[in-house]
This record gives sequence, C-alpha cells and structure tokens, in this order.
Amino acid sequence: MIRVGIIGASGYTGAELLRIIAQHQEIDVTVATAHEHSGKRISSLYPSLAMFYEDEFKAYDRDEIEKRCDAVFIGLPHGESMKIVPGLMSIGKKIVDLSADFRFDDPAVYEKWYGVPHSCPELLEQAVYGLPELNRDRIEDAQLVANPGCYPTAVALGLLPLVEGSFVFGTVYIDAKSGISGAGRKLTLQTHFPQVADNIVPYAVSGHRHQPEMEQVLTGVTVGGTFPVAFIPHLVPMNRGILCTMYVPLKDRMGDSEIWDLYNDAYSVEAFVHLLDAGECPQTKAVQGSNNCHIGLAAALNGEGLVVMSAIDNLVKGASGQAVQNMNLLCGLPEDTGLLAPGLFP
Amino acid sequence: MIRVGIIGASGYTGAELLRIIAQHQEIDVTVATAHEHSGKRISSLYPSLAMFYEDEFKAYDRDEIEKRCDAVFIGLPHGESMKIVPGLMSIGKKIVDLSADFRFDDPAVYEKWYGVPHSCPELLEQAVYGLPELNRDRIEDAQLVANPGCYPTAVALGLLPLVEGSFVFGTVYIDAKSGISGAGRKLTLQTHFPQVADNIVPYAVSGHRHQPEMEQVLTGVTVGGTFPVAFIPHLVPMNRGILCTMYVPLKDRMGDSEIWDLYNDAYSVEAFVHLLDAGECPQTKAVQGSNNCHIGLAAALNGEGLVVMSAIDNLVKGASGQAVQNMNLLCGLPEDTGLLAPGLFP
Amino acid sequence: MIRVGIIGASGYTGAELLRIIAQHQEIDVTVATAHEHSGKRISSLYPSLAMFYEDEFKAYDRDEIEKRCDAVFIGLPHGESMKIVPGLMSIGKKIVDLSADFRFDDPAVYEKWYGVPHSCPELLEQAVYGLPELNRDRIEDAQLVANPGCYPTAVALGLLPLVEGSFVFGTVYIDAKSGISGAGRKLTLQTHFPQVADNIVPYAVSGHRHQPEMEQVLTGVTVGGTFPVAFIPHLVPMNRGILCTMYVPLKDRMGDSEIWDLYNDAYSVEAFVHLLDAGECPQTKAVQGSNNCHIGLAAALNGEGLVVMSAIDNLVKGASGQAVQNMNLLCGLPEDTGLLAPGLFP
Amino acid sequence: MIRVGIIGASGYTGAELLRIIAQHQEIDVTVATAHEHSGKRISSLYPSLAMFYEDEFKAYDRDEIEKRCDAVFIGLPHGESMKIVPGLMSIGKKIVDLSADFRFDDPAVYEKWYGVPHSCPELLEQAVYGLPELNRDRIEDAQLVANPGCYPTAVALGLLPLVEGSFVFGTVYIDAKSGISGAGRKLTLQTHFPQVADNIVPYAVSGHRHQPEMEQVLTGVTVGGTFPVAFIPHLVPMNRGILCTMYVPLKDRMGDSEIWDLYNDAYSVEAFVHLLDAGECPQTKAVQGSNNCHIGLAAALNGEGLVVMSAIDNLVKGASGQAVQNMNLLCGLPEDTGLLAPGLFP
Repeated sequence: MIRVGIIGASGYTGAELLRIIAQHQEIDVTVATAHEHSGKRISSLYPSLAMFYEDEFKAYDRDEIEKRCDAVFIGLPHGESMKIVPGLMSIGKKIVDLSADFRFDDPAVYEKWYGVPHSCPELLEQAVYGLPELNRDRIEDAQLVANPGCYPTAVALGLLPLVEGSFVFGTVYIDAKSGISGAGRKLTLQTHFPQVADNIVPYAVSGHRHQPEMEQVLTGVTVGGTFPVAFIPHLVPMNRGILCTMYVPLKDRMGDSEIWDLYNDAYSVEAFVHLLDAGECPQTKAVQGSNNCHIGLAAALNGEGLVVMSAIDNLVKGASGQAVQNMNLLCGLPEDTGLLAPGLFP
Repeated sequence: MIRVGIIGASGYTGAELLRIIAQHQEIDVTVATAHEHSGKRISSLYPSLAMFYEDEFKAYDRDEIEKRCDAVFIGLPHGESMKIVPGLMSIGKKIVDLSADFRFDDPAVYEKWYGVPHSCPELLEQAVYGLPELNRDRIEDAQLVANPGCYPTAVALGLLPLVEGSFVFGTVYIDAKSGISGAGRKLTLQTHFPQVADNIVPYAVSGHRHQPEMEQVLTGVTVGGTFPVAFIPHLVPMNRGILCTMYVPLKDRMGDSEIWDLYNDAYSVEAFVHLLDAGECPQTKAVQGSNNCHIGLAAALNGEGLVVMSAIDNLVKGASGQAVQNMNLLCGLPEDTGLLAPGLFP
Repeated sequence: MIRVGIIGASGYTGAELLRIIAQHQEIDVTVATAHEHSGKRISSLYPSLAMFYEDEFKAYDRDEIEKRCDAVFIGLPHGESMKIVPGLMSIGKKIVDLSADFRFDDPAVYEKWYGVPHSCPELLEQAVYGLPELNRDRIEDAQLVANPGCYPTAVALGLLPLVEGSFVFGTVYIDAKSGISGAGRKLTLQTHFPQVADNIVPYAVSGHRHQPEMEQVLTGVTVGGTFPVAFIPHLVPMNRGILCTMYVPLKDRMGDSEIWDLYNDAYSVEAFVHLLDAGECPQTKAVQGSNNCHIGLAAALNGEGLVVMSAIDNLVKGASGQAVQNMNLLCGLPEDTGLLAPGLFP
Repeated sequence: MIRVGIIGASGYTGAELLRIIAQHQEIDVTVATAHEHSGKRISSLYPSLAMFYEDEFKAYDRDEIEKRCDAVFIGLPHGESMKIVPGLMSIGKKIVDLSADFRFDDPAVYEKWYGVPHSCPELLEQAVYGLPELNRDRIEDAQLVANPGCYPTAVALGLLPLVEGSFVFGTVYIDAKSGISGAGRKLTLQTHFPQVADNIVPYAVSGHRHQPEMEQVLTGVTVGGTFPVAFIPHLVPMNRGILCTMYVPLKDRMGDSEIWDLYNDAYSVEAFVHLLDAGECPQTKAVQGSNNCHIGLAAALNGEGLVVMSAIDNLVKGASGQAVQNMNLLCGLPEDTGLLAPGLFP
C-alpha cells in the first residue's frame, strides 16, 4: 500500500483526490493538509466523504510528510506549490503537483501569466508534463509531475493526432465550455449561483492562462514551428465538465476513413480515451465523475476543415483523476488502478 | 386598438406572444387557436397567463379570423403555415409568420432543408424577411412578414456591420449555444430534463436548418459573392437564451476605435441592440425575457481576427418579441411599442 | 411623475426596483445610491439595465435626496436602515423600507433575531406592515411602510383566510423552498454555484428570522391567542421563487366548496392573488418576474387537514414588486400601476 | 463470479445497474434485455457506458436467461414484471425485482394503486421487501426480493427508529423533494426541461403510489395499529436525489441525547446509513451517485416534535444500488460488495 499525503486538500481538487482514492486499492491517504480549515473534520466541509474519512485536515508539517508519506499530491494555489516542492524533493518524495507552477518550460511565460517570478526555475527541466497519453514513459521515470490544466487536457487529447501528423493548416479556433467547479471553491461573483445559473457567459476573452499551456503542448509536437490557437472559454450552468469545440482547418482534404483511422490508431490502446462513432457528439455528462475523455469528429467547411469535440470531467481527467493516473505511473502501478469507472449519467 | 389573432398559440412562441401582448397597449388578442389543445383554457397550459387570459384555445376557423382580427401571427409548425397564408392574404390580413415557410427566396432551398416542396412559391417574393434592423422600410410596406429564426437573428445582428462593410476575409466560425426552450414544447429525448440538465451537448453537427437562412441574409449584403459560414449549435442547460460566439477573420487589421465606430454607427439608433464596452461580454441572462440584443467584441489572433459575441432571448428577439416588433411596423405603430423592458436578471 | 430615490440600489432588491420602475409610467428614479459600488455605472453591475439606466450609483447624501426625491425605497441591510429613516421622515419623505428594521411591533423581538438593539423603537408604531392584501387602508395613510419578508408574504397570503376565519387547529407545518437569489448578492459558500446546483438543502433548521415575522402577522389576525408555526426553509437550485407547502390541521372537517368559497371571497378582488382550480398546483416559474401570488389547495388527512401551497417570486411579490405596490398606495396611485404582467414562463 | 441478467435494462434504473456492476468484482452482466431498443448498442443510448459494455440490448428470451444467468434483476414497468417472475422462479433463478409488483402484502392495495389485478398473488407471501436495514435476514433466505420504491426507502430509513420505539404521536407530515430522474426515461410534459428547470412543482397531491407502500412498511413495525402519513412530493430541478423533510409529533418530549442515542443504536453498524451531527442538514448532492443515506435531526415545536431529514440518491439507494445490495445478500456476498463509494460532490 502506497502512503500518500495531500497538501492542500480542502479545495475541490483536494476533495476529489480523497473521493477517488477512497476507491483505490493500492493507495492510502495518510495526511490531508489544509491552511484555513486545519483542525476541521474533513466531512464537515465535504459531507459526501463522511463514512470514508473520519480525520481532520491537518496543518502542513514537512516532518509529518517525511515520516508518514511515500508520495504527495499538491493541491495548493499557483505560486504556493513552488515554495514547498524543492524541500519535498530533497527528502525524496515523489510529487504530483496540480498547480501550474511546474507546467512551463520557460519561467518567463510562467511569470507573464501567473504574475510572480518563478522561485525554482532550475526544477522546471526535471518536471514532466503529466499528460500520460503523451508523456507516459517520461512520467514513469520522473520524481516531479506537473499535472496539466483542465482545458489543455481536453484540447491536447482532441488535437494531438492531427498536430503530430502535421495535418493542420493555420489557426485552430477553440470554443471551450466549462462547468462552474472549474473555478474552484473560492467565492467570486462569477461563481455566485444567481449570476451564472440559467445563463451562459464568455470570459477571459483577452487571454486565459491555459492558452500558453496548450500552445506549449501543441508546439512541442509540431514539426518546425509554433502552434498558436484562438481560445475563448465560457461558463456553463453545470457543476462539472469541459466541452471543447475545435474548428480545425486542414492542410489537405481528408476522407472520413483517413480521419477515423488516425484517431483510432492514436487512441484504441488508451484506457481513458474513447472515440465516438460518426454522427455522435460528446457530452459532458457522459464522462461526469469519470477519468474518461470522449472525442467526436465532424466534417466542416465542405471537408476542408474538421470539427473536433472533446469532453472531460474537469475535476477528474482535468485534475484529480489524471493526478492519480500520474501517481500510478510514478509508483509503478498499472496506470488505470482505481480509475476505471463509467460516467454518472444522468 | 389593433385586433390580432394568434394561429397556433399553444406552443412556446404562441404563449410568449400572449405574454408580450398582455403588456402591449395598442394590440389586443381576439382569437388564439390551437389544434390538439383547442377547447382547453389557456391558463391550464400556461398558468403564468392566468388573470390575463380567461379564454380557451379555439379551433382554427378562417371566418372567425376574418371577422374578429385585423392581423394575425402564425405560430404553426413549418409546412403548416403555407397552407393557410394564401387564404389569409386574400382576405386582406396582415401576417407575421413565425415559421420558416416564407423565409427563403429560393423554394429549392426550403425544400432541401425542410423536406417538403413549397406549396405557394409565388408568395416568396412578396414576403419580407422580418429583421427590422435590416429591412425596416420594406416591412412597413409589406403584407406578409417572415419572422427570422432565432440563431439567424443573433448571427445577423452580430455580423451585419462587418459584412456590409466588406471587412470579412474567409469563413466565419459560429459556435452557438441555446437554451432548451428553443426546441419548443414538443417532447423529445433531447429535451428530457435528465438528458440535458447539468450537461452541454453539441447537435446537428452535420447541418442545421438555420445555416442556409443565415447564409442567405449575409449573402444578401455581401458585395459580389456568397457568404458561407461554419455553424455548430449546442444545447445548454438553461431555459432561454442564445449566445453566439463568432470567430471572424478580417481582411485587414482593424484598430479598436475603427471597430467600435463601425458598430456604434450601425446600432446607436437601434432601440433593441446594445453594444457592450470593451472588455465586457454579453450573457444570455442579461437579455432574458426582453427584446434586447447585446453585442460584445474582442480582438483575436493578434488583431487579425475578431471575436463577435451576441446574446438574445430566443423566445423574444429570437421569435415572439421580434414578431411584435414586425407587427408594430406593419400596423404603423412605433416600432418599440410594448417591447421596452429590461432583461430579468438574476 | 413621482420622483423616487433608491437607497442601497446595488443589491438584488435594488436592481429589481430599477427593473420594475423602468416600466412604471408614474414613477421615475432620480437617485440610486450604493456604498461599495458608488461611482460605478449601474449597467456595469447589471448589464440587463443598460439602455434603461445610463447613470452611476451615487454615494448616499441626504441633501440630494431632499432636493431630488418625493419618496424613497430603502434597500439597505438590516440594521442600516434604521440609521437613516428618522432623518428622512423628518424631512417629510415617504418611505418604503425593504429591510426588517420596522417590521416588528416589539423591539425585543427585533433585537433577539437581528442581533442589535433597535435605535428608534418609537417609530415602530408609526410603521405599517406593508402587506397590502391585509393592511391596504393603513398603508394609504402611512409615511413609513415596512415591506414584508419574502417567506412571510408567501405564508401570510396562503394562510390568512383560514386564520382570520379561525379554522385552524394546532400547529401549522410550513415547508418552504426558495430560489438562491433570496440570499442576496453577497457571496457565501451557501450560494456558491457548485455547492447548491443540482442539490437541495434545508437550512436554518434551528430557527429562521422570518419565523417570528410570520407568527406576528398571523397572531395579529388570530382571535384570542398566538399562532406558532413550525418552519423549515430549503435552498432549491433555481434563481427566483418561493414555494410554501403548508400542512394545516383543521378544527372541523371542511367541504371542498366551503374551502374554495373562503379563498374566493378573500382573493377574487385582489389583482395579484390567483386561486388555482382544484387539482392544480402552484409552481414558482408561473409567477417568475411577476408580482403575482398563486395559491393551490388540496385535502389532506382524509379531510381533517388541508395542504395550502403558495408561490411567489421572492424578488417581486416577496420584495421589490410589493415595495412598488406599497409605494403606489403611499402616493395615491392605483395599486397595480406598473405591476400588471404575467410571469415569465418557461 | 455470479452471472446476472438485467431484464429491462434500457431505462434509467437498468443503466444504473450496468454502471454499478461495472465496478463490482463478483458480479458480471451476461444478458441485458430491452424491448423497444433491442438490437441497439448499449452505448448508443448511454455513451457513459462505452468502454465498459460493447454489447447490444437483446430481446427477452427465457431460455437465454436460463443458460447464461444465475440470477436476474428486473427493471420492467409495473405490471410487466409479474408476467415473467413465476417462470423465472420455476427455473430456480434468484430475482431482485425493481418494480412495485411484489412490494405489497395485499393484492387489493396493489390493484387499487397500480390499476391492474395482480396475476400471481400467491407469490406475494414469498417475496421479501428488500430494505436490508429492516429485513436483512429474510432477504438472505429469499428467492424473490421486491426492491423498495425510492420515496419509501428514504422515509423508512428516516422514521424506523422512532416508529419501532413507539415514540410517534399522531400523523407524520412528509414533504418530499425529488430530482427529475425519478420519473424515468419516458417522455412526459412534467419532465420536459423548459417546464421544470428553474422551477419547483408539487405533484400527486391527491395521492401518490408510494404512500401506501411507506404506510405498509411503517405499519409493519407499529405495535397494535396502523401508521398513516401525509405525503406531498415535489419535483426539484436536479437530476438525482430525494430529500424527505418529515415533521414528527412525539408522544413525549425527548432530550437530544435520547434522540441521538436512538438513531446511533439503529445505524452505527449500518454501512450505508450515516447520521449527521447536530446542526448539520443532509443534502442530496452529498449522496449523489452513492448508495448512502444521510439522516439529520432537528428539534421542532419546542421539543414536542422532531424534524427528521433523510437524503438518498433515488437511482442508487432508491433503486439500483439497493438492488445490488439485495443481490449481494441473496448470493451470499458481503452486503457492501461493489457499493462502497463516496457521493460525487460537487
């Protein structure tokens, strides 16, 4: 049994780690820390976890982590994670960090979008970007995994086969729709029920932090060039889920079978990526609560373009489920341990 | 007082006409017909209308219409409307038809998308496409107005200034999001609460009937050419509202002031179109229950493209409110009579 | 034209006053104040009000009120209102106060439930409890009207005919369900979308501030005794609306016609109270955005009890609509001016 | 591995059985039948089940069941189940029937509420009412288990300790709130999204089929008498979940510790029933997707009454989860096999 700590366990991604690991046979949570809520029973914040966790959130204490944990998940806010990662690495812990702190190769990009200079840029090279479908081998050998953002996960899984094959011509337009839990547990007017229920609202139209992240991933597999995207996210009145509708101009007209073969080749071996049949569209509720990603394809522009649609649960494949998938890889467990479950529908 | 009949009053657009006209000082509903529900009290289907309409839905009877109405709204399904329009025109009634039957110039396009041949193609030329912001003068002189579809209204209001000015280069990608009432009162699996609540679903990805309609409107103002669009609609778990996010490649880079001047020139005199400030995004709830259209603009693609966002209430500016606006014009009333109201927020 | 000020206009009840008065022919808003948001455009907080209000929220200034207003609505938090009411009364303004500060006859009850001593208890006797269906005559002659709470309005309208007629035996159980806007614009975990969407939650089970208020109203019409109730409110994932399901034990078995006659006698002359037919149940969406109250009745306990169900929009008949109704009465206007509108359904 | 068939697998309870069993280590689905949808891929109706079930729904064929199944779940509509149960019993299959056909002791009650005479009343005595917390021992020895209705499950778990202890005096008022999935996959106006979203509606106020069922269960543990209840259900705009708020008059005033001891004694050994702390209220989302029941208690009526609140997921503990719990018992497996999971929150 692998003993893990969850640093920053009181937010939604922390609670989701607790939920997922409650059903994981090989991982056990020995410490769950929180700052503001330390000392409170876990189930007082998350009654859904009653009967599964009787403990309280603890204050962070590295000595405790050292003694009681083999590995840690970090669910701290951006900028906080990099303060403790070097210390945890020095005592040999394996780490899956859910923040953005170790996602970028270039500390200048991090500073531009997250507003603070990076405090340990020397670790960026060691950190592996934790998209297993792209970096599986490197994750297995890593000590520090930077768990991807929710939008970049949905976008990358949707576009990777096309980009790796150099089929894309020009800018891809990404119209993204997210459930409200993506904004976390912190109170904001934008997540206040009467502002957003029975409503749909675009946001961050002048630039969203996940745009440079998805550009970095896609550029990484582009031969000789960069891969810019136009990205507009929207808030949808639902709890969970991201749907990305991506408008892709193609270099050359592709036949249906060519397109489907491309995606089938890429994903038929993947446990968590499901390609829908022609004519079917992904929907967020079909992956609700699961680590699955559903991808649908449709012709556009008389065959000169393609519409790629991908759906994930932002808190699972977009955060905590993918973190557990990465932890499984880090720890030498089968990658799908504790994660095989259908979505909760309806 | 203008006496109107509503033919096909038991669907959502019919009920919305009744709601709007209940607050209209110059129009009175003298007949409301329904087929399946004739004989039932209006308020038994729509308790919201109790205290405002004590009558029952009547079976359709042209003689009754002739005697008791100066003008009619038609809220029948596509294909049904064209069966009665010639007769109603022959007895001199002014007509606002909310179906698609008289929206297309070319009966072949109608037949292709609606699956039945047009039974009175000779009337198509007389019918005026009822987008007042585009065709105000022609509507005033018409006898038959074809009320636009909900998506084409939102798209046309968002794009007209750019298209009329020939600023667009290449295909516009239109990612549309609609509340569920857009699908009407008819029961379908797609509108069954557990299927669509807490969910977002693309649909009609292989082609939606509103696409040729918006292409016809936009082509009509395009100098020397056609105006194809890529259009993907989505069902959003909300009752009312359409948001269109439109990705527009520009012929030439435009400065912010040039763009805003263009839209201000187009819309500052319009009673129902509101241009948001830079940095603001439209949201459907801000126009809920109102005849207003909110438009927001954002730069994209490093200034080589533009994101245009438009929001309307699909049942008001997208259907019954616009129908009343057209009826006002047909009847020589001030265009905004009975329609000036803020959206219901929250 | 009556010139009114809205003191505390940036909350949901303030914005709802602005929305309603935008359609009121006899009342004009000359001043709208806010504290935190003073200096901001009204439409920047409420884009739904764009095109109707171009002004900014102002800081409160009694001299301005004195010069520019004939009457005022106060939408301040509980405890703040009583600080300015004496001054506004002394300069002769008519006042509709939407807070709880002047609802109670007994300042000790106020202090017990609202946690602060009353600063001007001498005004409590002058204040009239603004339920027009109960106190119409007194409101017409008043200077200060205490606008009722949302739950007490729904409960009182549902129970008054039975209580005034002394038909009730024993405790009434009131199971109340409210939309989230009832909690206001202030951010709380309880109104954070992911906590409450797709969920139903009882709250304040150990006592809610509206319980003593409804007990005071009902006791006021009880012959020789008090009228205690058991009251449990619930948060329902909808924006607006209150539904109260009230379980009423009867002194004597009542026949259907006796019950319906009782309610018809009470309400057939009322413009805003609608009695549903036998077998029909009220629903909150049928009164959404309107000042209407729908009441349904059903036998229970083999005729020895009655289930009374009442539905209102908490922001309209439960707050700002009723406030305008009271203002109409205060100012000698027909009571229903600007308020006759069907609910927005769907 | 126990091989089970699901007869009537295309409705929501059938799909939920498939979802739950996908994570069950000891049970395998060998046949899933459907009537209207036979021949369709399971994942074409429920894309959430793609990657877990590649098969098609089959037409019902008893020979196939005989060969390929050790036990069956029946998810057919009321009235259909009793047509096949005798035959399945005769070939020795263990059965968990999710319909109401075998829930009642008295066939006359069944006929009164379900509108058809019972076709095999002789089996009613053999059938065990499948509430494990009440009838665990009898279920272990049964061949035929009648899985309880959703409302009766929530009500019985909330009231059993009080009723068994004879603490209740007079009628209990049960105000129930249900998510829309409780009405099933069949299309009705009442489950049409625009009718019910952003709304709350009481229904079946003149009598609901689950009322006699809960009365039978509670009467069964009442010493010397019957146990009538007043029951009003409401539709809440959420997918899943039942919350019952029960107003219980007590024979004698009970102290807090007495009440909590009573419930703790009853439920501390139960794997799926969780008693909340004083001051906490159950919420449906805390049990979403899980087999858990959360119970909260609050004093009412100055201690002379009690408010008992219980929350379950109507499709899990209220249907398919409880069915699996019963199947575990029938088959000699640990009762909680495959069912221990926290709720999906948010």
